[in-house]
Amino acid sequence: MSKLWGGRFAKNTDVMVEEFTSSISFDKRMYAEDIAGSIAHAAMLAKCGIIAKEEADTIIEGLKTILTDIEAGNFSFEISLEDIHMNIEKRLTERIGAVGGKLHTARSRNDQVALDTHMYLKHEIAAIGTLLQDLQQAVVEVAQKYQGVVMPGYTHLQRAQPILFSHHMMAYFSMLTRDFRRLKGVWEGTDILPLGAGALAGTTFPIDRHFVAEQLNFSQVYENSMDAVSDRDYILEFLSFASILMMHLSRISEEIILWSSTEFSFIELDDSHCTGSSIMPQKKNPDVAELVRGKTGRVFGHLMALLTTAKGLPLAYNKDLQEDKEGMFDTIDTLKFSLSVYASMLRAMRVNEEVMGSAVRNDFSNATDMADYLVKKGLPFRQAHEVVGKSVAYCLGANKWLMDLSLAEFKEFSPLFETDILEAIKVETCVDARNSYGGTSSTGVKQQFTVAQDILTKQQSVLDMYTKGNI
Amino acid sequence: MSKLWGGRFAKNTDVMVEEFTSSISFDKRMYAEDIAGSIAHAAMLAKCGIIAKEEADTIIEGLKTILTDIEAGNFSFEISLEDIHMNIEKRLTERIGAVGGKLHTARSRNDQVALDTHMYLKHEIAAIGTLLQDLQQAVVEVAQKYQGVVMPGYTHLQRAQPILFSHHMMAYFSMLTRDFRRLKGVWEGTDILPLGAGALAGTTFPIDRHFVAEQLNFSQVYENSMDAVSDRDYILEFLSFASILMMHLSRISEEIILWSSTEFSFIELDDSHCTGSSIMPQKKNPDVAELVRGKTGRVFGHLMALLTTAKGLPLAYNKDLQEDKEGMFDTIDTLKFSLSVYASMLRAMRVNEEVMGSAVRNDFSNATDMADYLVKKGLPFRQAHEVVGKSVAYCLGANKWLMDLSLAEFKEFSPLFETDILEAIKVETCVDARNSYGGTSSTGVKQQFTVAQDILTKQQSVLDMYTKGNI
Amino acid sequence: MSKLWGGRFAKNTDVMVEEFTSSISFDKRMYAEDIAGSIAHAAMLAKCGIIAKEEADTIIEGLKTILTDIEAGNFSFEISLEDIHMNIEKRLTERIGAVGGKLHTARSRNDQVALDTHMYLKHEIAAIGTLLQDLQQAVVEVAQKYQGVVMPGYTHLQRAQPILFSHHMMAYFSMLTRDFRRLKGVWEGTDILPLGAGALAGTTFPIDRHFVAEQLNFSQVYENSMDAVSDRDYILEFLSFASILMMHLSRISEEIILWSSTEFSFIELDDSHCTGSSIMPQKKNPDVAELVRGKTGRVFGHLMALLTTAKGLPLAYNKDLQEDKEGMFDTIDTLKFSLSVYASMLRAMRVNEEVMGSAVRNDFSNATDMADYLVKKGLPFRQAHEVVGKSVAYCLGANKWLMDLSLAEFKEFSPLFETDILEAIKVETCVDARNSYGGTSSTGVKQQFTVAQDILTKQQSVLDMYTKGNI
Amino acid sequence: MSKLWGGRFAKNTDVMVEEFTSSISFDKRMYAEDIAGSIAHAAMLAKCGIIAKEEADTIIEGLKTILTDIEAGNFSFEISLEDIHMNIEKRLTERIGAVGGKLHTARSRNDQVALDTHMYLKHEIAAIGTLLQDLQQAVVEVAQKYQGVVMPGYTHLQRAQPILFSHHMMAYFSMLTRDFRRLKGVWEGTDILPLGAGALAGTTFPIDRHFVAEQLNFSQVYENSMDAVSDRDYILEFLSFASILMMHLSRISEEIILWSSTEFSFIELDDSHCTGSSIMPQKKNPDVAELVRGKTGRVFGHLMALLTTAKGLPLAYNKDLQEDKEGMFDTIDTLKFSLSVYASMLRAMRVNEEVMGSAVRNDFSNATDMADYLVKKGLPFRQAHEVVGKSVAYCLGANKWLMDLSLAEFKEFSPLFETDILEAIKVETCVDARNSYGGTSSTGVKQQFTVAQDILTKQQSVLDMYTKGNI
Repeated sequence: MSKLWGGRFAKNTDVMVEEFTSSISFDKRMYAEDIAGSIAHAAMLAKCGIIAKEEADTIIEGLKTILTDIEAGNFSFEISLEDIHMNIEKRLTERIGAVGGKLHTARSRNDQVALDTHMYLKHEIAAIGTLLQDLQQAVVEVAQKYQGVVMPGYTHLQRAQPILFSHHMMAYFSMLTRDFRRLKGVWEGTDILPLGAGALAGTTFPIDRHFVAEQLNFSQVYENSMDAVSDRDYILEFLSFASILMMHLSRISEEIILWSSTEFSFIELDDSHCTGSSIMPQKKNPDVAELVRGKTGRVFGHLMALLTTAKGLPLAYNKDLQEDKEGMFDTIDTLKFSLSVYASMLRAMRVNEEVMGSAVRNDFSNATDMADYLVKKGLPFRQAHEVVGKSVAYCLGANKWLMDLSLAEFKEFSPLFETDILEAIKVETCVDARNSYGGTSSTGVKQQFTVAQDILTKQQSVLDMYTKGNI
Repeated sequence: MSKLWGGRFAKNTDVMVEEFTSSISFDKRMYAEDIAGSIAHAAMLAKCGIIAKEEADTIIEGLKTILTDIEAGNFSFEISLEDIHMNIEKRLTERIGAVGGKLHTARSRNDQVALDTHMYLKHEIAAIGTLLQDLQQAVVEVAQKYQGVVMPGYTHLQRAQPILFSHHMMAYFSMLTRDFRRLKGVWEGTDILPLGAGALAGTTFPIDRHFVAEQLNFSQVYENSMDAVSDRDYILEFLSFASILMMHLSRISEEIILWSSTEFSFIELDDSHCTGSSIMPQKKNPDVAELVRGKTGRVFGHLMALLTTAKGLPLAYNKDLQEDKEGMFDTIDTLKFSLSVYASMLRAMRVNEEVMGSAVRNDFSNATDMADYLVKKGLPFRQAHEVVGKSVAYCLGANKWLMDLSLAEFKEFSPLFETDILEAIKVETCVDARNSYGGTSSTGVKQQFTVAQDILTKQQSVLDMYTKGNI
Repeated sequence: MSKLWGGRFAKNTDVMVEEFTSSISFDKRMYAEDIAGSIAHAAMLAKCGIIAKEEADTIIEGLKTILTDIEAGNFSFEISLEDIHMNIEKRLTERIGAVGGKLHTARSRNDQVALDTHMYLKHEIAAIGTLLQDLQQAVVEVAQKYQGVVMPGYTHLQRAQPILFSHHMMAYFSMLTRDFRRLKGVWEGTDILPLGAGALAGTTFPIDRHFVAEQLNFSQVYENSMDAVSDRDYILEFLSFASILMMHLSRISEEIILWSSTEFSFIELDDSHCTGSSIMPQKKNPDVAELVRGKTGRVFGHLMALLTTAKGLPLAYNKDLQEDKEGMFDTIDTLKFSLSVYASMLRAMRVNEEVMGSAVRNDFSNATDMADYLVKKGLPFRQAHEVVGKSVAYCLGANKWLMDLSLAEFKEFSPLFETDILEAIKVETCVDARNSYGGTSSTGVKQQFTVAQDILTKQQSVLDMYTKGNI
Repeated sequence: MSKLWGGRFAKNTDVMVEEFTSSISFDKRMYAEDIAGSIAHAAMLAKCGIIAKEEADTIIEGLKTILTDIEAGNFSFEISLEDIHMNIEKRLTERIGAVGGKLHTARSRNDQVALDTHMYLKHEIAAIGTLLQDLQQAVVEVAQKYQGVVMPGYTHLQRAQPILFSHHMMAYFSMLTRDFRRLKGVWEGTDILPLGAGALAGTTFPIDRHFVAEQLNFSQVYENSMDAVSDRDYILEFLSFASILMMHLSRISEEIILWSSTEFSFIELDDSHCTGSSIMPQKKNPDVAELVRGKTGRVFGHLMALLTTAKGLPLAYNKDLQEDKEGMFDTIDTLKFSLSVYASMLRAMRVNEEVMGSAVRNDFSNATDMADYLVKKGLPFRQAHEVVGKSVAYCLGANKWLMDLSLAEFKEFSPLFETDILEAIKVETCVDARNSYGGTSSTGVKQQFTVAQDILTKQQSVLDMYTKGNI
């Protein structure tokens, strides 16, 4: 098929090359943004007197019928027309005649595709932010549902100190809050209008970029036309945000998987969130958590892919940059799915309070409190640590816990021990004594709930603004 | 829909979870391998007396009709059936009755999916090897077509020493030959039968894995069942191979792009391999080379993705491993397309001999030969280097080339220069004097052609073996 | 050597294990932060009545002498003491006696190392921001020095449209401005105090984290103790920022290298920024630009490394996280060096105005303007594009530029052409007609200079705040 | 300081640029290879009559004294001399006079550094192979020490089927065997002599590359000089090998960490391989395993770094390639350390047989055997699976294991059950019945031991060859 840019060429494009270089198979996903952008562009051309008002009306009408057709499934995309822009422009001209050829005045596909991608990502940032907020909400709900449940806190996957299950959950709330902050940074880098940059140098027509920005709800325009068409930072920022978010989900997934094992038995996932085995009838597998953990790799890979693609490219647009979209689309899908299933899975999960409680009671994780006890009696911490270390070694040999020691035994390790030592190393004491700011005590956790409520409220205003801004 | 593994479950799978964990959208691509593997498995079950001969026949007949249906487009894949294995097994039982339920005797989806993937990759290794061999052939053809054409050789993108264009091309031949060697390594790691490993521990049925291996043209079987179901090394090796190959193509792409620029004008790509601009009527862009260079990122990303996914997984199968396929499929498609268009593009490209020749003549890249001249007259190389460095500085100031210097001027830099210096630094002399083994002289290049022919012949035998082995 | 934590152990650590797990070889780089953090901690312990005022004074005095010793090179770090924290604590106790053992009251190495790293990175963010600002300044200087110089703008490395060299430079200014914005995000994520989180759960001592925050110039404290010790997001954000910045530098490097080639000859780097060849006396290589481009890989690698390391870790601290530092340090060094040499290299570089000007005059990059001319006469853009495409094809055959066509020839392609076409496609016209916002016209570029000045001023206030905050 | 290549330059190198571009800080690590390569080169120059025999002797003598000096610590490396090659050449000339300047005849730093790196990596391949072999040996020893110990086999970290601990260990043996195979591929790609390629085009001197190859134990020479100086495939192959190997070690590390947790308590690491906590006296952390798991990221990062660096480089040498070494060196160190500590840690680890045995007895992992029992009585597998699934659901409700069911209860689920069902689902039966090839039965494991012995013997011959070849 003859190309819209074919005037200078003596030969048609090779069919395999056409298929290789075409992007329509994936960029058609941005059809709504492409049409909305074209409508704003046409309106601006008329407003600035570059085309007639009636011409703009005809073009806009034509574009709207195409939108209807696509949404109704009545549009056949052609590989030979390369991309979503040319597919729509060609159809427009078929439908409204030569005036359709005026739409591309004062713009290039370079700034057009950049516009579409910015708009598309803005929509998705709003959607992802909403799901992220919902997951944070789910985390708080779970933390509040199981207030007072104690469990062992771990470092190095070794039992370290007793904590509240709610405290553990709220650590994830903090991580997700940082993800939300980063998402706002992505929005800031995306909310910049590239249209009007032309191929790379601006245009000779008296256009009004700020009018287009207003129509399409962009708060800024690019200051430099070459930068506008070759900037992919906003996608890289999105992929960086997504990588860190998935890393967080991989961590909670690891814990969900551990806690679902027979060995831990800390939680039970709902049957509806697990699958079975084709061969082993007893199996109930935490597939969702495993798959989210596994998909972390996919998102890291997309980040690495685009960084590599962008490395070493001279200005301005190069065809390499066409590779920016598929990884972004897949990342969007992966995030949305992962956030959704996680919120649902956490809300339905059951916590085995007795198992958690028993784990922390049959344990040495009150050893730090025993050392702190001695410090409060005046022993330098480093010596107190040594005393308790020896006590633990003794217990391991005698097959006892620290709570099982008699006062006489305690005193063998240090004369500073008195009868109140047993109270000092009870699990409940250990937990509630950690009431330093941000600590695991029940007052500390309640304070975190208050802060969380504030954060969620503020985030909601941001989301409202993001959502309202979209068209 | 009720699951084939649902006996132990009290609740149906959540619909969103079903969609999230299902793999049918991508693993259906391996339908032919899945069916071929099941046929071999059924035949083995009968041979070993685990099911009756007639049962096996019924199963095999049923599987063949399903294959026909799929290839005719008469098969609707169900997300609720999760994957290609369950989709086919369920349909089989619908068609042939309860005996269909015997097919899964003595196997698990864990070893079944591993089998499918090994078989699928083996097919594609053969296909990729064939395209790689064709690209090597195209490189040799181009090198032979332009024998005798001189050009500047570059280091640091600065003109360094005169070379033959053919020599430059043959450097790429050497790279691709290493890629072929690595591809053989990938085959070696893939050509191992996992079936018979069961879920992870082997099976209690008296199966014959070597019989299955023979039927499906595998030369080895896994020695350890847990390894068999959790090994993804072969895919990682494939992605490593693919990454290095794409890196090579990114290097030749960079050169194609440079050489196509107005500034170099060393080559002209055929119109059929280029595209134009939607706005700039004069443009003819080397899109194919740019896109291949850009797609390098995608392949690196897939490698990083799977490495990340596999990191830190305990034995044996984990759901994370389901993430192994999409990146592999996309890499296969990317390689096949890139190799094909490259062979076609190189064969159609035109070399501008005069531009290349002129570039090397108006240049200082004969400076090393001038130094070598002095060395052959007895000056230590390091001093000769200094003498020529000063001559170049002089020429830059005087706006001359070395060939423009008079004998008197030469002698000012060193009394060792005689009239034969001009002959010694002629481009043709510079090129042909580099007849050390592997050097750019015309005899050196001819020798490389001979070696290349040998290599291609040997590779062809390997490819014949790979292709024959496939079913 | 016996360990400070050795009470519970029956056996000494294996020497190889000691060396393998020790971090002193690299974390000693944070000695100043470790000591400053300990001083603030000791002061807080005294203020809160956890240790006596005199004890705190003794400890602080001891720490200061250790600082002096380290800075004077009089401190020998021991591998068997594992890390910077234990090296300093042990020495402290040797010097001031058992009271030194009180310093570690109410803290753990987990929150201590997090504190050191946050402080260290804050210092370096300020330093990197300053160098980044200076590079932006250098870009503006170069752009202003060569105001009015025209050159071809490129897309696909093909000449596209005439632009001002200054406009090209200012595209890099825009990129670097985004980098600065992201750096502020990194600061925001780093400027949070972890100390007081203890091992993971907070502490039983009545500490005052906000007092410590104030002393050490932190504007926030972590809300959750488990998050505080296991968060490495701020380093990942830094590495993401650094990766995008290096990607930008790789793009300008590619251009510096291209422009320094004989084929382009657009610029000449100063001799002091280039190196020669051991064998080829004429060579002058743009090593700095190549090396910066090459080092892009190193920084991407560090990002990928830490993402991989953090993937799938359960809460809270795991030893894996010790791997967070070396990549961060190396990235800091790489950025600081790259930014410094770039600013210096750009300032000393010479632009060959004539070569650039000649390149754009002997060229078809005025083709878009010829099409725009027809559009302004009423022809739909798509048809105008076709007309010009055919004119270019004609010129290629006739070995002419568009400027060489007679009016008669012009009119053969379209009757709309008049004598003013020659004025319309002059390079100067092409450039200055692109006066849309952000375009390449001289007024457009001047406006960018104004905006840049504003940006630099605002950034400077930020830097002042960052620098003042550091101790 | 004036440069050995400075003849053409008007200005000295900027000091910061000197430091930035210098590689001596890391490439000095290859001093022995550099000198050995120079000695072979000098001997060849004399043999071919390019320099006099006495000159070669003087040069070789001088080089040997420099080697002695370096090894004795009596050599000060200068940054201004850039790299190991120039440092040594300069010193040589200071020591033996102008004849030292003849050493660089017929070679360039481009082929010289390639030679050094090939030689260095060959040494390290031999060393790494030896450590890898030793780790495989340690794995076999541990597997043999605990023959007969049963444990639960896992999929999805859920108990799946009973296995032998030895079988689990031998899965790692299989993985490491594949690593050894890949290491041989790395050797094959490294064992190629680049010297004689000159800067890029070969040399005009009548050199004998095969003589040098023989002297330095290379079995091949590069066929194309441009390829010889720009090939970094062998390092990428090494990093790919290393990434997969580290991924394997990350998997075993994850298991060591899990098994060391209180919840699993399957193993106990020796005190000498663990460390404690600065604050929690009871802690004994599996640091080595965590750190190896963490260092996986570092190695993936180095792979990604070099792939990125090499992407898009035109031929032949570019300064970017100087970035090839540090990541390679760090990977070598990481592998050697990780392999060593792992072999030592595994040998010293104790397996808690009772805990493992108890875990598998109080469990449903015999469910598959119950299904297989029904299949052997004639029920199609899919129906047998359903029957057992329901039995498991019943047991969960009734708080029983399958072994606890009465015959009457069994018969409620299927009339096919007879009294022999209890024997069929005993753990010992489950394990030993899996005697398919590669299965977990004790005969299966013994067979794996036999195969392993063969493999180790064959690998040893390879290692002998690698080691002998090194100088």
